[in-house]
Amino acid sequence: MQQTKIILDEREMPRQWYNVLPDLPEPLAPPLDPETKKPIDPQKISAIFPMSLIEQEMSDKRWIDIPEPLMEIYTLYRPSPLVRARRLEQAIGTRAKIYYKDESVSPAGSHKPNTAVAQAYYNKIEGVKRLATETGAGQWGTALSFACKMFGMGCTVYMVRCSYDQKPYRGIMIRAYGAEVFPSPSDRTRVGRLVLERDPQSGGSLGLAISEAVEDAAANPDTKYALGSVLNHVILHQTIAGQEVKKQLHMVGDDPDVLIGCVGGGSNFAGLILPYIPEKLEGKKIRLMAVEPQACPTITKGRFAYDYGDMAKQTPLIKMYTLGHGYFPPPIHAGGLRYHGEAPIVSHLAKLGLVEARAYFQNEVFDAAKLFLQTEGFLPAPETAHAIKAAIDTAKEAEPGQVIVFLYSGHGLLDLSSYDAYLKGELKDQAFTSEEIEQSLAECPQV
Amino acid sequence: MQQTKIILDEREMPRQWYNVLPDLPEPLAPPLDPETKKPIDPQKISAIFPMSLIEQEMSDKRWIDIPEPLMEIYTLYRPSPLVRARRLEQAIGTRAKIYYKDESVSPAGSHKPNTAVAQAYYNKIEGVKRLATETGAGQWGTALSFACKMFGMGCTVYMVRCSYDQKPYRGIMIRAYGAEVFPSPSDRTRVGRLVLERDPQSGGSLGLAISEAVEDAAANPDTKYALGSVLNHVILHQTIAGQEVKKQLHMVGDDPDVLIGCVGGGSNFAGLILPYIPEKLEGKKIRLMAVEPQACPTITKGRFAYDYGDMAKQTPLIKMYTLGHGYFPPPIHAGGLRYHGEAPIVSHLAKLGLVEARAYFQNEVFDAAKLFLQTEGFLPAPETAHAIKAAIDTAKEAEPGQVIVFLYSGHGLLDLSSYDAYLKGELKDQAFTSEEIEQSLAECPQV
Repeated sequence: MQQTKIILDEREMPRQWYNVLPDLPEPLAPPLDPETKKPIDPQKISAIFPMSLIEQEMSDKRWIDIPEPLMEIYTLYRPSPLVRARRLEQAIGTRAKIYYKDESVSPAGSHKPNTAVAQAYYNKIEGVKRLATETGAGQWGTALSFACKMFGMGCTVYMVRCSYDQKPYRGIMIRAYGAEVFPSPSDRTRVGRLVLERDPQSGGSLGLAISEAVEDAAANPDTKYALGSVLNHVILHQTIAGQEVKKQLHMVGDDPDVLIGCVGGGSNFAGLILPYIPEKLEGKKIRLMAVEPQACPTITKGRFAYDYGDMAKQTPLIKMYTLGHGYFPPPIHAGGLRYHGEAPIVSHLAKLGLVEARAYFQNEVFDAAKLFLQTEGFLPAPETAHAIKAAIDTAKEAEPGQVIVFLYSGHGLLDLSSYDAYLKGELKDQAFTSEEIEQSLAECPQV
Repeated sequence: MQQTKIILDEREMPRQWYNVLPDLPEPLAPPLDPETKKPIDPQKISAIFPMSLIEQEMSDKRWIDIPEPLMEIYTLYRPSPLVRARRLEQAIGTRAKIYYKDESVSPAGSHKPNTAVAQAYYNKIEGVKRLATETGAGQWGTALSFACKMFGMGCTVYMVRCSYDQKPYRGIMIRAYGAEVFPSPSDRTRVGRLVLERDPQSGGSLGLAISEAVEDAAANPDTKYALGSVLNHVILHQTIAGQEVKKQLHMVGDDPDVLIGCVGGGSNFAGLILPYIPEKLEGKKIRLMAVEPQACPTITKGRFAYDYGDMAKQTPLIKMYTLGHGYFPPPIHAGGLRYHGEAPIVSHLAKLGLVEARAYFQNEVFDAAKLFLQTEGFLPAPETAHAIKAAIDTAKEAEPGQVIVFLYSGHGLLDLSSYDAYLKGELKDQAFTSEEIEQSLAECPQV
């Protein structure tokens, strides 16, 4: 019988996160204060983030120890399996090897808990009693609710109202973990009340939900804010996945030729590829492939520039690939990939030519999801299906024996209504024109 | 760091199922033909089941080889983890050890694929092109759809109409696997049309859906019928789980004192406990605990008697614990436990005093589910939560060091509306009176 799942023993789980910052051939451009256009003063963000995470955000240490209490929570679901997708290989007739790193096995069903539990832990030891955050489709809100409960902390989630109404299951799960969840705009914050006064029926937006969570954290001394992607420390925590992949491939004597992940903010992709950056810089031939939706083609069609991280222009300016902070992507079903920007680290690597990117329309992505489901058995999240599509296309063109690894970032069990629309042929393939993207990019701030 | 998950290597996966029939101290009472009241002629059921499964149903071989193509499908998700629930132990202050065998990791999210893929395989090699089945809440229909797709077979699922309308996600998943799903009553069968003529708005019932699936199979030469629990061959296929538990406990030097599973038809519970029956018969002190809802207390309040397996009186008569084939349980959220009978093997063991049973109300069961979620992180199915409740109660009374193992039969990600009702305090704790149960039992046939 051929081996299907490569399982790492708990005792072999990585005990440090890998920080790519000291290994970058050129340093990252610093985040800027939007008023002064000068590098931001760390003290200025200490009202919403704990000092230990701010330190990680700009650390020059290559390896950062994972604290023991955190390892204990990780072992609830880690190490995660690396799986050889033999039936998928057969179905597409490739002689390349396709592996997927299954991060859907976490309690929240995605890779998000890798950083959620870390962020909860560091806040906890600095005396924070409660975390506030935003969530769009609900994946991040679920992960942070789980994480806060594991460390006995309170958690408040501002969930974009149209998602809150359309996807009630995520809200229920957040509440079952003991967290509070409010549709945003809410009457709990000044900014929420302002919007409600103008439009009591407002469906909200991710940018607005961020503003509510940040205001909540800034206004309450025992409360901080948590973000699920984009930032350096978030990406740092995700590197446990890529390190496990290294060990797992080593167990079967394979070496990767291509690493693939979908990108919204970029954290699952970065978690997979960063541990391979030192080898790539030393000349190893390995392709690092970021996959995005045609509806939100940040790397493939955006600009590398300073921009705001949110629509409401409340964040520092960060240098990244962006479609403009006012870009409002067409309503595709991969909600987690509808972000106008891209993690600075991933953007930087793409700008340096170390990371390549490609973009797909959603119907071809769901075709790939269906093929995966009907061969490997498991139902992928629409976001994850972008990576599957790229893995299939890459495998079809690959030499025999080449090793392709993609990150299976989450399951689709709470996305079945999207599959329903796909199966009924109701999904539209939408993309903005170059002119429309140029128009959105024109709003980027002058630095 | 203490070990949390006990992982069996794929190469250590059991290669045979364990058949308890030859080891029973007294033989099972045979199924009877309802007309003649004599043991049923195997030929009479060969129109709806393949001969290899009919042979397994009455086999006297202790070990039955698992065919290689089936092992390959099993390795998509097996061996499943055995997990030490340390955080749950701490929360309830027990010094006993609690383990759970996690069968929720399958593509369908429950233990059901263990038999679904076996049934699909044996039908396939006998030339069957399509399987027909019924499903209530949708768990079994999902598992069989997955299994049929793995072997390139067609699959038709008759889903009780009220579930079909209330729980659309399961239907979508069945369709995504490439199977057909029809609300029952449907106009595809004689019996379905009869019911629709009388009541076009009929919400259907599991008994009726069985009748439609059986009629479909009997009427089409290339089609057979598949059942998800109760029968001996179904339970045989589930014994892979209990055998894995044995190996996994051995890896950590533990020996079980109590084995616990929820029971509807009884297959997940039987899969866990049967491999321990020979030791128990040799005098080993081990408690085997079946857990049922107070709303459907088959073993705790039913009668050991010959009865029909379905409400429509179409099946052979089987000797089992029953509440009467006309028993219609109150509408609890653990839909998979709402069955009036109990697998003959489990019933027989209970009658012999080898299996004990207890029953719980649904609010206390959801309390246990919430505690599990908030300590171990994962969301259990309402059915599974019955086993969790019993494990918690047992651990609280246990001696230090005692080993309690329960079967985690499925996740609750498609049951979040039930959690919503629970969190809102809307769940009712219902049970029928002894008089009402007596009345239902009076309808059991005279044999």
